[in-house]
Amino acid sequence: MFYTDGKLQFPVRVERPNPVFAKALQQAIGGVEGEIRVAMQYMFQAFGARGPAKYRDMLLNTATEELGHIEMLATAVALNLEKAPLSIQEDISADTAAGAVLNGMDMRHVLSAGLAAMPVDANGVPFDMSHIYASGNLAADMYSNVCAESTGRALAVRLYNMTDDTGMKEMLAFMIARDTMHQQQWLAALEDMGGDEMNLPIPNSFPQEKENQTYSYAYFGHMVDGSIPEGRWTAGPSMDGKGEFTAMRSEPMGGKPSLAPARPDGGAQVAQTSKSGTTGLLGSIEGAIERNI
Amino acid sequence: MFYTDGKLQFPVRVERPNPVFAKALQQAIGGVEGEIRVAMQYMFQAFGARGPAKYRDMLLNTATEELGHIEMLATAVALNLEKAPLSIQEDISADTAAGAVLNGMDMRHVLSAGLAAMPVDANGVPFDMSHIYASGNLAADMYSNVCAESTGRALAVRLYNMTDDTGMKEMLAFMIARDTMHQQQWLAALEDMGGDEMNLPIPNSFPQEKENQTYSYAYFGHMVDGSIPEGRWTAGPSMDGKGEFTAMRSEPMGGKPSLAPARPDGGAQVAQTSKSGTTGLLGSIEGAIERNI
Amino acid sequence: MFYTDGKLQFPVRVERPNPVFAKALQQAIGGVEGEIRVAMQYMFQAFGARGPAKYRDMLLNTATEELGHIEMLATAVALNLEKAPLSIQEDISADTAAGAVLNGMDMRHVLSAGLAAMPVDANGVPFDMSHIYASGNLAADMYSNVCAESTGRALAVRLYNMTDDTGMKEMLAFMIARDTMHQQQWLAALEDMGGDEMNLPIPNSFPQEKENQTYSYAYFGHMVDGSIPEGRWTAGPSMDGKGEFTAMRSEPMGGKPSLAPARPDGGAQVAQTSKSGTTGLLGSIEGAIERNI
Amino acid sequence: MFYTDGKLQFPVRVERPNPVFAKALQQAIGGVEGEIRVAMQYMFQAFGARGPAKYRDMLLNTATEELGHIEMLATAVALNLEKAPLSIQEDISADTAAGAVLNGMDMRHVLSAGLAAMPVDANGVPFDMSHIYASGNLAADMYSNVCAESTGRALAVRLYNMTDDTGMKEMLAFMIARDTMHQQQWLAALEDMGGDEMNLPIPNSFPQEKENQTYSYAYFGHMVDGSIPEGRWTAGPSMDGKGEFTAMRSEPMGGKPSLAPARPDGGAQVAQTSKSGTTGLLGSIEGAIERNI
Amino acid sequence: MFYTDGKLQFPVRVERPNPVFAKALQQAIGGVEGEIRVAMQYMFQAFGARGPAKYRDMLLNTATEELGHIEMLATAVALNLEKAPLSIQEDISADTAAGAVLNGMDMRHVLSAGLAAMPVDANGVPFDMSHIYASGNLAADMYSNVCAESTGRALAVRLYNMTDDTGMKEMLAFMIARDTMHQQQWLAALEDMGGDEMNLPIPNSFPQEKENQTYSYAYFGHMVDGSIPEGRWTAGPSMDGKGEFTAMRSEPMGGKPSLAPARPDGGAQVAQTSKSGTTGLLGSIEGAIERNI
Amino acid sequence: MFYTDGKLQFPVRVERPNPVFAKALQQAIGGVEGEIRVAMQYMFQAFGARGPAKYRDMLLNTATEELGHIEMLATAVALNLEKAPLSIQEDISADTAAGAVLNGMDMRHVLSAGLAAMPVDANGVPFDMSHIYASGNLAADMYSNVCAESTGRALAVRLYNMTDDTGMKEMLAFMIARDTMHQQQWLAALEDMGGDEMNLPIPNSFPQEKENQTYSYAYFGHMVDGSIPEGRWTAGPSMDGKGEFTAMRSEPMGGKPSLAPARPDGGAQVAQTSKSGTTGLLGSIEGAIERNI
Repeated sequence: MFYTDGKLQFPVRVERPNPVFAKALQQAIGGVEGEIRVAMQYMFQAFGARGPAKYRDMLLNTATEELGHIEMLATAVALNLEKAPLSIQEDISADTAAGAVLNGMDMRHVLSAGLAAMPVDANGVPFDMSHIYASGNLAADMYSNVCAESTGRALAVRLYNMTDDTGMKEMLAFMIARDTMHQQQWLAALEDMGGDEMNLPIPNSFPQEKENQTYSYAYFGHMVDGSIPEGRWTAGPSMDGKGEFTAMRSEPMGGKPSLAPARPDGGAQVAQTSKSGTTGLLGSIEGAIERNI
Repeated sequence: MFYTDGKLQFPVRVERPNPVFAKALQQAIGGVEGEIRVAMQYMFQAFGARGPAKYRDMLLNTATEELGHIEMLATAVALNLEKAPLSIQEDISADTAAGAVLNGMDMRHVLSAGLAAMPVDANGVPFDMSHIYASGNLAADMYSNVCAESTGRALAVRLYNMTDDTGMKEMLAFMIARDTMHQQQWLAALEDMGGDEMNLPIPNSFPQEKENQTYSYAYFGHMVDGSIPEGRWTAGPSMDGKGEFTAMRSEPMGGKPSLAPARPDGGAQVAQTSKSGTTGLLGSIEGAIERNI
Repeated sequence: MFYTDGKLQFPVRVERPNPVFAKALQQAIGGVEGEIRVAMQYMFQAFGARGPAKYRDMLLNTATEELGHIEMLATAVALNLEKAPLSIQEDISADTAAGAVLNGMDMRHVLSAGLAAMPVDANGVPFDMSHIYASGNLAADMYSNVCAESTGRALAVRLYNMTDDTGMKEMLAFMIARDTMHQQQWLAALEDMGGDEMNLPIPNSFPQEKENQTYSYAYFGHMVDGSIPEGRWTAGPSMDGKGEFTAMRSEPMGGKPSLAPARPDGGAQVAQTSKSGTTGLLGSIEGAIERNI
Repeated sequence: MFYTDGKLQFPVRVERPNPVFAKALQQAIGGVEGEIRVAMQYMFQAFGARGPAKYRDMLLNTATEELGHIEMLATAVALNLEKAPLSIQEDISADTAAGAVLNGMDMRHVLSAGLAAMPVDANGVPFDMSHIYASGNLAADMYSNVCAESTGRALAVRLYNMTDDTGMKEMLAFMIARDTMHQQQWLAALEDMGGDEMNLPIPNSFPQEKENQTYSYAYFGHMVDGSIPEGRWTAGPSMDGKGEFTAMRSEPMGGKPSLAPARPDGGAQVAQTSKSGTTGLLGSIEGAIERNI
Repeated sequence: MFYTDGKLQFPVRVERPNPVFAKALQQAIGGVEGEIRVAMQYMFQAFGARGPAKYRDMLLNTATEELGHIEMLATAVALNLEKAPLSIQEDISADTAAGAVLNGMDMRHVLSAGLAAMPVDANGVPFDMSHIYASGNLAADMYSNVCAESTGRALAVRLYNMTDDTGMKEMLAFMIARDTMHQQQWLAALEDMGGDEMNLPIPNSFPQEKENQTYSYAYFGHMVDGSIPEGRWTAGPSMDGKGEFTAMRSEPMGGKPSLAPARPDGGAQVAQTSKSGTTGLLGSIEGAIERNI
Repeated sequence: MFYTDGKLQFPVRVERPNPVFAKALQQAIGGVEGEIRVAMQYMFQAFGARGPAKYRDMLLNTATEELGHIEMLATAVALNLEKAPLSIQEDISADTAAGAVLNGMDMRHVLSAGLAAMPVDANGVPFDMSHIYASGNLAADMYSNVCAESTGRALAVRLYNMTDDTGMKEMLAFMIARDTMHQQQWLAALEDMGGDEMNLPIPNSFPQEKENQTYSYAYFGHMVDGSIPEGRWTAGPSMDGKGEFTAMRSEPMGGKPSLAPARPDGGAQVAQTSKSGTTGLLGSIEGAIERNI
């Protein structure tokens, strides 16, 4: 169950409202790198967490923090929109060194939201919940979270670099710091669960004897000339300490796939009802139609 | 540019076709944990890779391998569908210890695909490309890839455990091994790029002096009773060796957000055009309408 | 900013786990009638609320409550899945009066979530945030909220009627009561803002003189025989007290639309570059190609 | 069954084509507040209407009217695009007080549609049919329709205020009037069905004795300081006349959720297979692997 | 503008309601092969048609017909649902030779629609309007329409074969006939516009001299062994009579792509800021950070 | 299985990077007319192809070619972005005859991708795999492919006309030629399968005697005045040589649909539980509630 105090985790201040930057900020709300994603992802990971309770609790805390980040960014968007043009005339007459504002802002900020934030990305594409990764495997989830906070911090850094508004830079400097911590936090959770050697390969509950171990630590080259890009992944001990990296050219072990001909009552063409198209087309039509009746 | 030989990387054999398992296999084709995702993700990461060429090449090889995994799984789906019922009568008359097949299979395998694979997940939801994470930051992408291969291997393991078909188990045992390697490979690439200390926080090109460093290594508790779940993330050196974990109760640093009243020509209600609803409602209506004319 | 105590607003108890009912419950989590929708909708309405602060506060409280409803339902789904079959063999051997469980449950509860809730509907379609209606107009939003709570309560009632599990019925009886209150609450907010006469038509800030008032209170019949279904909407005073309902047969006031021919460098066919297809086709090709070079 | 005369319900005239306004108009075609939504929503409500035939007929008429509104708006978009730039050179050389047109218009109007309307919103996001609310409950549907016409009229008002084209203002003044009527119409239908007291709570076919009536008319506060925003919703008779509003602080009635540990063959990590992470990790690995073999 | 008479184009009769078949029928309503698609596609093609008016009129007629097909199918779905189980108990106690009905039907037919049709496909995925192909090029659109009617007829045939209900078979036999006609109609329109030789390549308004004509009629082989599948497409005159088919092995004409290194303020890793990873990593970090400050 | 050489099928050269054109190019990558679509469509058609192997092989070759087209376009996007502004200041100070670049470019090229291509269209909408048409009917698929290559070539032509960069024009001239060939190729495949007379109606495996042949070659007019647009589709032999076109006014053969009243435990309103709303409302409420208890 949740509570609120209606206050902001960190002050949100906009010195010069900029509707184009409001559009950019949307990416941090409704983009796949954004705050709805992490809030909901950590929440569903917590709600479904099986195993030691501390991981559930840790996830729930941070999910709750991220809800407040949505709040901060939504406030930042609304404040950046406060002087947005509502009409084409107003737009043209404004002093716009950077060109028409309506051209660059998200028109739906006027048309659909009345100058407020929406749960969409910088292109107006609504966030969809298929991006909530909660796999039931805690280690996989932790890596998903590191990924989310890495792309999230990259986004926040890009927004920081994009704006020249001191208030916005302060808010983003706070958020970048939180992303730093959250990257650390999920990596720390992996260590808490035993580190790479214990956790890998994920899931570690599947006995590796059952996998086809010939190919468990082999880098496959698919270059037609057989060349292979060398790196840490082509030689030396594997990262989990359980094997040795090798590199090999990939060769087909299977033949060409061979599917049965189409069944005549399956809505295919008659030409598909035999595996050879060169003979008997008429015959197969008749056969097909007969069989169908 | 790409080439093919039309053969399968590993043999695909189905002993007893099972249309319900065909539906489960769809998750490995068009699910977010599936092969279209990794093929396209590694491909877009390669196509946009800036920096040392070896990472581009490494990514491109594995993207190319994953295309062949889509092929294997699509073949497996088609083979599992070869005896699927095409009519309700056929369905009922079959010997179905597990109940009606049409109830459990994806009917669109008959209706839309003529007994072949579709680029959709186990619920028939089409894959969408917003799941292609290619951030322009190689380390973030590597973590995204570890996540993809971890959820991918968890999925393959669950499919392996679900089926009792030897052919399918062999194919999946191969795929599980490849997922093992690919988890290793992306972690190896991170080490190749300098390891945690060098790479973190991601992006490492942003000077940490600019972030609000008071909060860079602090775990925030949002429990109303002030309790905090302890773990590796609340004390000790941070994972990047650049700080020390602390834990603190989260407190609001900002006040309640305060947005300007609605503008009368912005499509809001008149009641929204002042910040207090208790007085002057009629006045504000008149004002609003006047201003509007 | 938000807080939690990790406890459930109301106890969630499952007597006999039923994976098929877990699938049905998903509709109340990730369906358009579900809890993610209302939590996020009220939250975005609050974050963007312009005008008297009390509406923002009221919305924020209820948004916060709804987050706890997601938590209750996610817990209910996880508990209903605790004995779900993980393999086809396990499935068939179970005592399944209702047929195979895998046929009726959401296989992704096994494959993707490891026996936990997902932010998807009963068909596995992920919730998408385009359903967050936050229009910047408080009255429109209140009606959207009444709608959400009406479809939400209809859904909860249908789930209540569907299950025979006492624990689930108790949880749903609580949720149905909350939906009752929330329907009342949004209607009360409309009255608080002045009631129908003051609020309508929405937005009430647009001077009705500017609309084409001939058609503001007329029901249009589009039946070819001119018949019109009579009801409260065809006669009597309008609901806002500002007009009188009438009914009339709809007649075209405009002619057939007439667009300019296609421009030759616009990627159309040459046949589209004149408004008459009967003459001069060759001429228009030559003209088009000339103009293009 | 449907018929047409190919004529426009109201004349569509564009004085000065404006491709940027064409983009804005798309919101009224393919946005969630737009005409495809209402046409299809009323149609599906009609097609599935159970109960007195007059509601079905009323819905069908208005669905049919709304089809003509799509036609009007699509024509308006095409006319606004008639002088749109087809090349970057053409764009730059034009007299563009408001900046480059290609920057502000929807490029897909050139690239994908050849200067015609598309079933997408102002950001080019295609309309999706999950927004067709047809719940099988007529009262819920009526509220959904009031919501649709309220956001629809807000949108039309915003478009009216945005443009300076007399032709467009006339078309929109007609549409705004129709939205006025349609708001009235759905409210009138609710009165026709018995009004608030008869209809509420929706669905009214569920006996209120079965809901947890302690909480049916209570506003829940979730503020950590226990404060509650007062209004019509915290005191006085409820809107349905069946209860009395109260307000109370929300307190958890349930404890912390407790899920079973992960099953070893379910693709989780071994660390998740017990509820305590502090002891027996190695033991539980062995146990898990044994059980799995 | 549109009209209706509320009657069905063809009688819809269901002898034995079957909720599982109701689910299958959904594909013909909200699937990509379904009636919403063709109705809306022909409508948008008509609304945006530039060139001779007869094509616009022809399209509009058929769009209007297809609206009636949605109506017929929606009625068929509702009738098939009339005895659907509303509870788990009701489901189990029914005489279900084919297993539990709830397992195989779309539960949202109960939960979301109250036993009526929804604008979704057989998997409950809502139709989205990105499938409305209206390209502004009439010939491209005609081919899109042939495709829609071909997959549509294949679907109708599969539904016909699936059901054993005489009423349903009669309705589908009518729809299959209409699909036959519509396939013919779009091909006839292509002939009306001049046939293959006149129309191809589409768009025919682009002078073929401007394309790279060396590759205009060459089939490219991408098999690693150089083999090429022979057919009508590898030799003989081209279908437009403007060239001669040839076949050749595809060879790269371009080199490896070479992108600039990442810019240090662009949110990438430092390792990406040079094109070689082997030297100067520390130097490039310093340079990057300096430049950034 | 697939291979690569990392080289481009055709050289990609950008003379003057233009981030706005980069946005336009996205349509050719992730638009429905784009290269991901054709690559994946031909691939899934190949993977599921039943019948003569040559069609599978032909499809697989071209699928493989199209993968290289994604690569070319992704490279073109990255090169066009190389001088894109990363900040608002940088943007304003640039020499922008066409106005601010950030206004017209896809901001997510900076924010999400670090100056690289994304699998999205020109509006930033991600490609979704529901556009992969692979119906299991080869003739339907061939028409879908002709459609894809027709809209694809129209798009490439529009991009060619839009740009003034010689490098880009050369790349597009190559791609336009390939689209020419691919249109030919799919039409050739249809001829290879027997041509129109043999293939039509699609699917040709359904005996036409079973369809309602009265309506198989009749154009239906839905104009209220009975007028019918004449053309090749209203008279003369049908395109498949199996019938004669006629034209007729469409008349309803069915009556008004009549659904059963709502069931009281189905979540509808009480008013819906009888088919007449005029009498017995109170009675039906009582009845409904009784039956429900």
